[in-house]
Amino acid sequence: MTRFGIVGGGLMGHGIAVALAQAGHRVKVYDAEPATLAALDERVLRALERCGMPPDDMRTVRARITSAPTLSDLSRDVDVVIEAVPERLDVKREVLEALEARIPAVMPVWSTTSVLSLTEVAKGMRCPQRLVGVHWWNPPYVIPLVEVAPGAETDRRFVQEACDMVNGMGKTTVRLHRDVPGFIGNRLQFALVREALHLLEQEVCDPVTIDTVMRASLGLRWSAVGPMENADFIGLDLTRNILASLAPHLSAELTFPALDTLLSAGQRGRVSGGGLLAWPAGREEEVAQRLDSGIRRHLVEP
Amino acid sequence: MTRFGIVGGGLMGHGIAVALAQAGHRVKVYDAEPATLAALDERVLRALERCGMPPDDMRTVRARITSAPTLSDLSRDVDVVIEAVPERLDVKREVLEALEARIPAVMPVWSTTSVLSLTEVAKGMRCPQRLVGVHWWNPPYVIPLVEVAPGAETDRRFVQEACDMVNGMGKTTVRLHRDVPGFIGNRLQFALVREALHLLEQEVCDPVTIDTVMRASLGLRWSAVGPMENADFIGLDLTRNILASLAPHLSAELTFPALDTLLSAGQRGRVSGGGLLAWPAGREEEVAQRLDSGIRRHLVEP
Repeated sequence: MTRFGIVGGGLMGHGIAVALAQAGHRVKVYDAEPATLAALDERVLRALERCGMPPDDMRTVRARITSAPTLSDLSRDVDVVIEAVPERLDVKREVLEALEARIPAVMPVWSTTSVLSLTEVAKGMRCPQRLVGVHWWNPPYVIPLVEVAPGAETDRRFVQEACDMVNGMGKTTVRLHRDVPGFIGNRLQFALVREALHLLEQEVCDPVTIDTVMRASLGLRWSAVGPMENADFIGLDLTRNILASLAPHLSAELTFPALDTLLSAGQRGRVSGGGLLAWPAGREEEVAQRLDSGIRRHLVEP
Repeated sequence: MTRFGIVGGGLMGHGIAVALAQAGHRVKVYDAEPATLAALDERVLRALERCGMPPDDMRTVRARITSAPTLSDLSRDVDVVIEAVPERLDVKREVLEALEARIPAVMPVWSTTSVLSLTEVAKGMRCPQRLVGVHWWNPPYVIPLVEVAPGAETDRRFVQEACDMVNGMGKTTVRLHRDVPGFIGNRLQFALVREALHLLEQEVCDPVTIDTVMRASLGLRWSAVGPMENADFIGLDLTRNILASLAPHLSAELTFPALDTLLSAGQRGRVSGGGLLAWPAGREEEVAQRLDSGIRRHLVEP
């Protein structure tokens, strides 16, 4: 049993808390926003319900997660601290500075960033060698993957320790040789999203069609056979020929007018009731349940 | 019941034959390569075995697929012809010319191309208005998705008819507003593969790690929730911020040195016993079974 302190009780922070508590660890959560902290217990409960856990187990797991009223409370009697605050360099640096003032110099610090450069995040830290990028996927208590990466100054022992701890929770850990913005998963994800937006801008199809294609072919295939194994399967000569022929047509854009147009019109997605798709009442819950049940079904051995 | 004639008995051609026969249609297959044609019945049988079909049904479905010794035999007593020959413009054009000399002017012609421009493929056809891009995903008797696209001169009635027929087989059809190289699925796929190769070239990780990331997170997520729905879910403002921050780092390459290096060393993938990954004996069969069982498990309603 390890004692974790998580700074940030949002989607990622409370999700990681649930994943850690399910694996038997104790977790304290702090958030600078009192409303977020006040909602923690309710959000944890909903997450555990989504896991379909029996009531007795649910009580046990829930009792392992407590909220810390201040950063000083969070930093007391913990073994590892995790920053799970929004993806802004200034916010993350400020939190890390405040944390380092309160914890021993040898305590591991994990960052949930995958979009910012971990090396940049670590700049200004008293002990940057203990900062490890530990990037969970949403929801962390459902998705198996955790990406672990070092910053330029990270001590490899902290990286190995993080991998061992996360693997010990039954997660699937991958280790990056070095820190790059987006790690592996988000680079792959947003390379695809960039091309999807390109197809919308070229009026080849609408957003619903993109999702249909992904759900009825590529998602299904990639959950069973990865793209590298598939490239070998069809042959690397064919793969190279297809790439050489398609690459000049693929997006290399740095701006995203399809998103800008929607955002200018106040269409921000789920929270505004509409974005690329319509978001009538009930869709949010339906999507969350579809994600959980779809993934669980796939993870069950036949 | 519709009578189909397929030119090309390779991976795609015999796979489509099985998908059509399963849906109750009659299929003739012709291949210019006698060895491919001779292997047809054996390949069909293996495909049906992979479907886990009861022996009686298997015999019924198998009897609906026959081989045609010549292109003239193929063209007789069919309602729709499908070209499923290799992705080379000259090969496809030659086959279409030979087909058109043998079939009535009103008969629909479907092309399996998704990488070549359909408009280019149609150039030189006597009746280009009947050529429809009908792109199946491998294996066609397992993957639900079929992409349907018009060339610049295609008559929309032929497109609608193709959609109706494929939907009638229980497939998930998407229709492109216009023909673009790679259609939707292969553009999305190879945008991601391009970035995966970029990560290898930057020595961020090895090929196995790419596949682990895809199978343990993105593939699982995308088979349940598409990337457009996910962008709305996390918020389009966040999506735009992440894209703007990652895009300058994402691959916009037109050359693929990681593949060139392997190919120069004779590492062509599965067929040469090694490529991005090692291919010891038995891996080919294991991958095919993993793909089928993974997808079937996901398609079953909970």
